[in-house]
Amino acid sequence: MRATLIHAPRDIRVEDVPDPEIRRPTDAVVRVVAACVCGSDLWPYRGVTETNEPRRIGHEFVGVVEELGSEVAGLRKGDFVIAPFALSDNTCRHCRNGVHTSCAHGAWWGGEDADGALIDAGQGQAVRVPMADGTLVATPEQPDESMVAGLLTLSDVMGTGHHAALAAGVRPGSTVVVVGDGAVGQCGVIAAKRLGAERIIAMSRHADRQALALAFGATDIVTERGDDGVARVQELLGGIGADSVLECVGTKESMQQALDATRPGGRVGYVGVPSGGSELPIRQLFSDNIAVAGGVAPVRAYIPELLDDVLSGAIDPGRVFDLELPLEQAPEAYAAMDERRSIKTMLRP
Amino acid sequence: MRATLIHAPRDIRVEDVPDPEIRRPTDAVVRVVAACVCGSDLWPYRGVTETNEPRRIGHEFVGVVEELGSEVAGLRKGDFVIAPFALSDNTCRHCRNGVHTSCAHGAWWGGEDADGALIDAGQGQAVRVPMADGTLVATPEQPDESMVAGLLTLSDVMGTGHHAALAAGVRPGSTVVVVGDGAVGQCGVIAAKRLGAERIIAMSRHADRQALALAFGATDIVTERGDDGVARVQELLGGIGADSVLECVGTKESMQQALDATRPGGRVGYVGVPSGGSELPIRQLFSDNIAVAGGVAPVRAYIPELLDDVLSGAIDPGRVFDLELPLEQAPEAYAAMDERRSIKTMLRP
Repeated sequence: MRATLIHAPRDIRVEDVPDPEIRRPTDAVVRVVAACVCGSDLWPYRGVTETNEPRRIGHEFVGVVEELGSEVAGLRKGDFVIAPFALSDNTCRHCRNGVHTSCAHGAWWGGEDADGALIDAGQGQAVRVPMADGTLVATPEQPDESMVAGLLTLSDVMGTGHHAALAAGVRPGSTVVVVGDGAVGQCGVIAAKRLGAERIIAMSRHADRQALALAFGATDIVTERGDDGVARVQELLGGIGADSVLECVGTKESMQQALDATRPGGRVGYVGVPSGGSELPIRQLFSDNIAVAGGVAPVRAYIPELLDDVLSGAIDPGRVFDLELPLEQAPEAYAAMDERRSIKTMLRP
Repeated sequence: MRATLIHAPRDIRVEDVPDPEIRRPTDAVVRVVAACVCGSDLWPYRGVTETNEPRRIGHEFVGVVEELGSEVAGLRKGDFVIAPFALSDNTCRHCRNGVHTSCAHGAWWGGEDADGALIDAGQGQAVRVPMADGTLVATPEQPDESMVAGLLTLSDVMGTGHHAALAAGVRPGSTVVVVGDGAVGQCGVIAAKRLGAERIIAMSRHADRQALALAFGATDIVTERGDDGVARVQELLGGIGADSVLECVGTKESMQQALDATRPGGRVGYVGVPSGGSELPIRQLFSDNIAVAGGVAPVRAYIPELLDDVLSGAIDPGRVFDLELPLEQAPEAYAAMDERRSIKTMLRP
């Protein structure tokens, strides 16, 4: 079968790889219906993180169960499934606490399983899924093709935006700022609206992303950054910062902007993977009683709840996909995301 | 009248100072019934913070209203009042958000008011109280002498321990670790129990403080520190950290211990003023989804609720006072706290 590998920065190739097969009785094999490129895939692409040898890449996909190990109890062949970006057993104490990303038996796509065997990554034609019962979530019935994009967001960006909003304590009536206009930030807008925010200020300098944020429920756009951006937020909110700020980037500048845009006693929910020297300045947080919460999003925990809203049409996060390419054009998908020509690119095997 | 001044590290004197008088129509003059020494008063005492010139000191007191400015509406002469450690108008947006320590017109005992006039500090015979309506909370009736100690804790340590517990998200059934066995940590134990925690692990190496924590509701004592302490906590909790950890010290070591003792997805509530290089390591927080909240406690917001429980006897935080001295012996009060001969020392004018 065909799958995507990264060989080196800016060297993405689609190659022949062995077909996946059941290795353990808890495995499933899933034929990929749609996968996509994540903002975090751009780090090795840009050389921010190292690529020492060619490796499979991609951690967001949906598909159909083709084979099942003998011990998989909760899935049937033919089920349409959503694969969260982290594997989990869904039974350990951390999973029961809703923190599937800290699963006692957790693993990562493209990484190794408990026996040291390679786990497939998501940007391919098919995937061996360890701990299939814990990891995968099946839809109640076969979804319509028009639902695929929305369901695919549940493997990462929609759950991650939701995590940011929950971590930031968004509730009915909240004033919210979203820092970051990528797919996660856009889903943060959706999540904030879904949780009842009264005011949602999206910080964005790109017309297409501003339009999408407004379509998703943003009430205001702030184009300024840094101190000017914070001043504009306070102007919009009557002189103080927001109750809740969603940090969906992960850089030093974006985190500082998020903290500065938060009112005393407010909360920052951060899901942008810390990079570029991102810090939490304890004295500012202490003086202003600003809480910070978030981290690598346990999207597995959120899929059931969000799935209902996607299927009912209550939310439409699939709109973050503005480019769809065949799997064979994965290199172009990476280039389009890297050059910001695309917010989020879907790959179809 | 007589009041306490700090002249230099380890140089505390009780001296004659001018009697306080009403300067603004929103002022009150309060005769101090009891005051106390705070752990944070030990910083200038120890020379950790500078003392450039002699200044009044103390920010925790209760007393009786002796005089009122013409615009004070909510108090009457003779009222018994609790003075929170920060002054606030109780009407601005931050106060309405419950963050009185960020009050738009806020000030500090021993600091300056909006006109640059010196504000008295609390360790004296009487105090001029600016923004008296906002700052002071009167008890419904004259309290019995036996209640004075408990009421005095509402000016700081009980409210601060409560803030730590709220920030750490303590709720019915929570597992809790309290780092710090001083008066604030002890009040953190009270607060955690009051909020319904199922398991409260106090980290303490001092027999008297262990006994007090157990009396306040701690279910377990951990005497080890650092990695050994964390291992012991996990052993007590079946292999994972606590849902909620109260950081009531403020040093680099205590904060790291607090973070390490928190389970993935758990929360640290910190009220120890950051000192000694205390940091929030963002990568650890991000990986484990550990939330951090807290800061300088808005105790004014909590007094009404906690006051009811003190007056009813539901909580008895006054037991943190293990030494009572006349005001004239303020130097000995500082020495006793500094040398850990006393958990918390009351001064009686």
